[in-house]
Amino acid sequence: MKFATLRNAQIDGQLLLVSRDMQQAVSAQAIAPTLLNALQHWDTVYEPLQALYAALNAGTAPSAFAFDPAACTAPLPRSPQWLDGSAFLNHSNLMDRAFNKPAPPLVETVPMMYQGASDDFLGPHDDVFLPREEDGIDFEGEFGVITAAVPMGVDAASALDCVRLVVQINDWSLRALGPHEMKTGFGFVQAKPSTAFAPLAVTPDELGAAWHGGRVQMPLQVQWNGDHFGQPHGGEMNFHFGQLIAHAAHTRRLTAGCIVGSGTVSNAARTAGSACIAERRVIEIIDHGQSSTPFMRFGDRVRMQALWDDGSPGPFGVIEQRVAKYCP
Amino acid sequence: MKFATLRNAQIDGQLLLVSRDMQQAVSAQAIAPTLLNALQHWDTVYEPLQALYAALNAGTAPSAFAFDPAACTAPLPRSPQWLDGSAFLNHSNLMDRAFNKPAPPLVETVPMMYQGASDDFLGPHDDVFLPREEDGIDFEGEFGVITAAVPMGVDAASALDCVRLVVQINDWSLRALGPHEMKTGFGFVQAKPSTAFAPLAVTPDELGAAWHGGRVQMPLQVQWNGDHFGQPHGGEMNFHFGQLIAHAAHTRRLTAGCIVGSGTVSNAARTAGSACIAERRVIEIIDHGQSSTPFMRFGDRVRMQALWDDGSPGPFGVIEQRVAKYCP
Repeated sequence: MKFATLRNAQIDGQLLLVSRDMQQAVSAQAIAPTLLNALQHWDTVYEPLQALYAALNAGTAPSAFAFDPAACTAPLPRSPQWLDGSAFLNHSNLMDRAFNKPAPPLVETVPMMYQGASDDFLGPHDDVFLPREEDGIDFEGEFGVITAAVPMGVDAASALDCVRLVVQINDWSLRALGPHEMKTGFGFVQAKPSTAFAPLAVTPDELGAAWHGGRVQMPLQVQWNGDHFGQPHGGEMNFHFGQLIAHAAHTRRLTAGCIVGSGTVSNAARTAGSACIAERRVIEIIDHGQSSTPFMRFGDRVRMQALWDDGSPGPFGVIEQRVAKYCP
Repeated sequence: MKFATLRNAQIDGQLLLVSRDMQQAVSAQAIAPTLLNALQHWDTVYEPLQALYAALNAGTAPSAFAFDPAACTAPLPRSPQWLDGSAFLNHSNLMDRAFNKPAPPLVETVPMMYQGASDDFLGPHDDVFLPREEDGIDFEGEFGVITAAVPMGVDAASALDCVRLVVQINDWSLRALGPHEMKTGFGFVQAKPSTAFAPLAVTPDELGAAWHGGRVQMPLQVQWNGDHFGQPHGGEMNFHFGQLIAHAAHTRRLTAGCIVGSGTVSNAARTAGSACIAERRVIEIIDHGQSSTPFMRFGDRVRMQALWDDGSPGPFGVIEQRVAKYCP
């Protein structure tokens, strides 16, 4: 199933089912008012949702309408927790060079993960209002999963069974603020403004063979102001999503609807390009002694879209956002 | 006003108003179903809540009943964000010695703050189920505030006006897991299991002169297994709550109901004792060359209560919790 959330006057929006071809949508409100509610009552709502999804795909759902991603919030406009890993070690290795710090201990065996704000996510076409260009405005293309309720101490294999939905993420970052927050050891607060999501959250079966090994086996196409920026592949994740969920639940239970992210998609092959500017900049430093790519300016646009193997648009829809100056 | 939340079958519980003397309670459900809802609609519900509170204190509220803190969840069983500062520099200076690390940069001018999980708080008398004693189980006595909606980039003075409620907190910590997570720079996930709250969230006016300078000017009495452990005073906060809120909102808006914590209450005077075991242990190391106080064992109890100047029970009620082994 493919889910989206229609913006309305409520915090959690209104739950939509979207057809497999992403052309048609139907309100699922009679079954569950919101996606968070559906995740909290999954066993009860699963079959009615599947029946409605089948009707929508067959063209027989009453009140179906043309799907408009621009009318959507993030699939979950807020979630119980947003925990973002750094599961592509190629990225974290390069970033350690950027921050001029030694690799953290156990980096190859224990996932790195930060707790982000989860009360105010951005929709796929929302402008990104930020106060200062000099904070080092950067995008980060990622994949993520939305979980069922997860018991404390779950093992990685069981944790993978807790994946309810798969999502595509733009984890906005302010690079000038990150190094100080890392040095405190307390993690990111100011360096991580609101995170954005592609319009569709999909059940793993929608990915077919591209959901394999607990990873999204798809390239993530990233364009900056219309130019190609990178197309790294999600299959190179060093930790799979079950391992990330198990790490997050080591000493706490997770409630239904928690979002666990992969961290920036990153590949060892330089030809893949990058899914964030910071990574390109550190590659420039390594290759040429200095970085030449600046961070984003107000008015800049970023576009992200996962692709099927044949290059056709993937199942999550498109993130396309513009950075704008925040004026109080 | 004093608010509490009665446990029921809903995630957010049921809103109660509690009398000034903490003896009587009344359902506020007809005005706002939950405390989160009240915070989201504060301007609308404020006067009706005040009228009900006046009637409750006058003994004329219909359906008033004896207040039972044991029937309560945290005032907010979940909140949009939980951002915990480390605003008592005496504590962070001592902890740096415990973690054997240099003081972070700008420690005296920029608050340290981590983002915690906010989806699953513990009530004042909830047992604390944790998997292993060897994780270094510790309590942390703190004060905190619950905010109105806060605009991005707010200054510290305006941020202080966004304080809606004041709370008392036990920020459970696993000390064996903290140092690794600090070294990653990504902050705490596993080292911070669910946080607990005293039963009452109170408007600042309930503190009278003890709400001054953006700080809770009250001692926090901490007892471990019935023995005195510490009684540090909240007035020694190096950053006030307005500064902490402004730090949190530097690059993001906060939605109504966010909780901002002070970090462990800590005083320079050794006679004050400590509000967490880790701090006592590092003082032992400094004074005697080694620590002699172990962390908590399963079955141990901790009790925390803010006090008025005359030593009488403060306005937040009591946190009294037992640590128990989590069995999947």
